[in-house]
Amino acid sequence: MTIKDVAEYSGVSISTISRVLNNHPDVREEVRAKVLAAIKELHYVPNSSARDLVKTQSDAIGIVVRGVENPFLTSVISSIEKAISNAGYTMVIHQIGTEDDEVSAGAGLVRSKRLCGLILLGGRFDYTPGQTATIEVPFVCCTYTNSFGSLDKKSYSSVFIDDYAEAYKAVKLLIENGHRKIAILLGATDDHSISELRYKGYCDALSDAGIEFDESLIERTQGYSMKKAYDSTKRLYARRDDFTALFAISDSMGIAAIKALHNLGVRVPDDCSVIAIDGIEVSKYTIPALTTLIQPRKLIGHEAVRILVDVIKGKKNCQLRVETELRIGETVAPPK
Amino acid sequence: MTIKDVAEYSGVSISTISRVLNNHPDVREEVRAKVLAAIKELHYVPNSSARDLVKTQSDAIGIVVRGVENPFLTSVISSIEKAISNAGYTMVIHQIGTEDDEVSAGAGLVRSKRLCGLILLGGRFDYTPGQTATIEVPFVCCTYTNSFGSLDKKSYSSVFIDDYAEAYKAVKLLIENGHRKIAILLGATDDHSISELRYKGYCDALSDAGIEFDESLIERTQGYSMKKAYDSTKRLYARRDDFTALFAISDSMGIAAIKALHNLGVRVPDDCSVIAIDGIEVSKYTIPALTTLIQPRKLIGHEAVRILVDVIKGKKNCQLRVETELRIGETVAPPK
Repeated sequence: MTIKDVAEYSGVSISTISRVLNNHPDVREEVRAKVLAAIKELHYVPNSSARDLVKTQSDAIGIVVRGVENPFLTSVISSIEKAISNAGYTMVIHQIGTEDDEVSAGAGLVRSKRLCGLILLGGRFDYTPGQTATIEVPFVCCTYTNSFGSLDKKSYSSVFIDDYAEAYKAVKLLIENGHRKIAILLGATDDHSISELRYKGYCDALSDAGIEFDESLIERTQGYSMKKAYDSTKRLYARRDDFTALFAISDSMGIAAIKALHNLGVRVPDDCSVIAIDGIEVSKYTIPALTTLIQPRKLIGHEAVRILVDVIKGKKNCQLRVETELRIGETVAPPK
Repeated sequence: MTIKDVAEYSGVSISTISRVLNNHPDVREEVRAKVLAAIKELHYVPNSSARDLVKTQSDAIGIVVRGVENPFLTSVISSIEKAISNAGYTMVIHQIGTEDDEVSAGAGLVRSKRLCGLILLGGRFDYTPGQTATIEVPFVCCTYTNSFGSLDKKSYSSVFIDDYAEAYKAVKLLIENGHRKIAILLGATDDHSISELRYKGYCDALSDAGIEFDESLIERTQGYSMKKAYDSTKRLYARRDDFTALFAISDSMGIAAIKALHNLGVRVPDDCSVIAIDGIEVSKYTIPALTTLIQPRKLIGHEAVRILVDVIKGKKNCQLRVETELRIGETVAPPK
């Protein structure tokens, strides 16, 4: 069996097949798929040089980061990098925009860098088996899981917090402090992602406490930037100036919301309590210090690598849920 | 000339030489150096397979990051990554601790990943030619330059702000607002790095305004964490409660200082003004918003890549100084 047989079988030129074997990026996806299918069907084994090339890269773990500027993710990256080094692997990092597709970026990275494993740091919650099949190595969804998707649990790993349950906890804490007019600041309520899950936790916490749902207390920021959170808080307040507590789904958004409330003359926590989820360092030093549920960032990064290395070595995939820890700051108090 | 000749000449086994040629990490530095010296002296050219391996990696630019959790650096990374992609190269990122040596980490990365260029993101200001000779490809010092070192300007590139001049500007602004008892919060005064340069700018701004130097207004944090800045501000205040302005050499330190002053009952800016350098996003949303000199982070990352690609393509090294821009916040006011 030679490369010529593959060429004849697939109807693709030898030079293109060579480019596929050498993982050149400049091959169209459909051509690449055709060649890989032919190789598989013919049981073709590339020559030793090509195999060597593959072998020389097999110690690399890729990490696709969606939104490297997110202060929450940077310390997860730091923890992943240390764990990859300690495990004797090397790390290749690739950053994509929040609108880009991490699966196709990751699959491309696996091929071009001949990775042995992949960590998707941030991503969609609704993958289908057809989408992730393009990732030819073990992969871990990091800080999220396949909540809205249809993946077989045996086909992927993940390390995540239960966004629904953690949001429920945050809102419950506000309710326990006596609040009933509780607003929420989130990206969207139907994004099949963090916002939607935390929104459901918010709704159920209210419902379980016998508090009627009120649409006008829901503020959709259509994004996660501090600027959007700041502007949205002002919009929310223009519509409803009587809420006594606000649940922001991230620390960054919570910090921007506190600033907006301050500029509106609303005192936190005297006039309005604020709680968030993340626990980034700077939120300890805001005035007042943010009350928040801390995600265990070091643990998340460390466990993502541990699980991935296990799967690379032949163990089964697994989905690991980790818990947040409450950091009591200065932004939650009973309503007056 | 064969690999056997290299083995005999160097007294190193063929398998070890092969590992060196294939850039395996598990070769001791002294052995690697011995083998490389023998290869050079004998003018040995590795076989085509080894040469292919080198060739397959030549589109990769490495970036060694000192302190990936620094919020200032994360957006520079973001900008570097985009510029590398746009220039048709790929990026390999490696993170090291603040105490680690970026030159040896970078030199190792160049060899193991067969990089064509290197960006050192954060690093020492005092390299000697002997140290950087281990980096076998063009490199750019990013966000700093060789202020305290002895490198030939033709041998390296850099993109940096003039730490001395920018600190001078910040302190001058406080003086123009009427302050004369101005404290400084910095890492150390003799670190041959950012702190020392900004300290000199502080000293000269005071001196040029006829303000006598006062050692007790200098607070050394021995590090850059928010925790250290917070504790240091409390120590400073315990020693001197009469300063009317504080220059913090970074935004993060400035935010922590404002929190410490607040907890001490000192109102910012009514009782004490605060100014910093960096311009990270969150400092727009602190209460009060931090007045700061913004480093052009996007420009710094973009220019570092542009210069590096130019040098890879044969152009000369260069040192590019960029300027900050004042962002007027709410933390500077005349003393009462």
